[in-house]
Amino acid sequence: MSSVQETLRAAIRNIPDYPKPGVMFRDITTLLGNPQAFRRAIDELVHPFAGTKIDKIAGIEARGFILGGAMAHQMSAGFIPIRKKGKLPHDTVRIAYSLEYGVDEMEMHRDAVQPGEKVILVDDLIATGGTAEGATKLLRQMGAEIVAACFVIDLPELGGRKKLEDLGVKVQTLIEFEGH
Amino acid sequence: MSSVQETLRAAIRNIPDYPKPGVMFRDITTLLGNPQAFRRAIDELVHPFAGTKIDKIAGIEARGFILGGAMAHQMSAGFIPIRKKGKLPHDTVRIAYSLEYGVDEMEMHRDAVQPGEKVILVDDLIATGGTAEGATKLLRQMGAEIVAACFVIDLPELGGRKKLEDLGVKVQTLIEFEGH
Repeated sequence: MSSVQETLRAAIRNIPDYPKPGVMFRDITTLLGNPQAFRRAIDELVHPFAGTKIDKIAGIEARGFILGGAMAHQMSAGFIPIRKKGKLPHDTVRIAYSLEYGVDEMEMHRDAVQPGEKVILVDDLIATGGTAEGATKLLRQMGAEIVAACFVIDLPELGGRKKLEDLGVKVQTLIEFEGH
Repeated sequence: MSSVQETLRAAIRNIPDYPKPGVMFRDITTLLGNPQAFRRAIDELVHPFAGTKIDKIAGIEARGFILGGAMAHQMSAGFIPIRKKGKLPHDTVRIAYSLEYGVDEMEMHRDAVQPGEKVILVDDLIATGGTAEGATKLLRQMGAEIVAACFVIDLPELGGRKKLEDLGVKVQTLIEFEGH
């Protein structure tokens, strides 16, 4: 494990039995609050795309907004918010996605992306991948080319990375944790 | 009006009668999606603090996360999420704040800020200032020194800037709109 990974891993707070018994919650607010760790995480997420023209960063509400805002500014790209339904003020496209229990819907503005634009999708963590899969479909429906999907944390046992890769999306993650 | 202000103003979408008749909604998603405008807005927000040591940027959920993530990265500061109640996984402090109709509550992690840390508060827009006032009190309760509160948009007729200034908070905004 590299020292970058060690730094980031150490900056994450582990909260046992949250939100329910048996689950170890990976809390990135401690990483975000640590200037060195936050800066390093963004630099690592952005690094593989040096020299690649990226039009927009699509961030998934809400923690993906923090990371995505930083990435968009660093890459001189635009930012697309992908939000829970009913929160965007203009004409939207909507998709249902799977949660651990049941389904929900997410939206983005219909004019948020133009056909052929190169987009990076970002969220703090990939678990089962239901949210990222929905966002991928939404962006592609509007003609975006998804260059990659980026996450600080991967929980590989939950299969989200494989789900995205099966859709032909390149996945970049910084650190992995066992379990869920 | 400077060319920067003109650029930013032109990048904002005005949506009449949203969320209710008679209100002109100022939609910053079009500014966020425009790489030049987004970059310029962040640079303008950050510029006054060049040479000032800022420990943390506190962003108000949800649009304040996008701007605050970018500012924190640019300033090599940490990021503090101020969220609607029930969304943060660890021990929190909570405060009630006034909305146009009724009240709601916001939270931050109890350990998100240390006494004496220099913090900039950020959101996309200041209207009546109820949310920013609540966030200011929450941060000060934990000992933060609020260096400034920053907003892309000010609706001065609604009095939010004055409300914060009366609390001794320096307010920085980039563009003003009449009405509400």
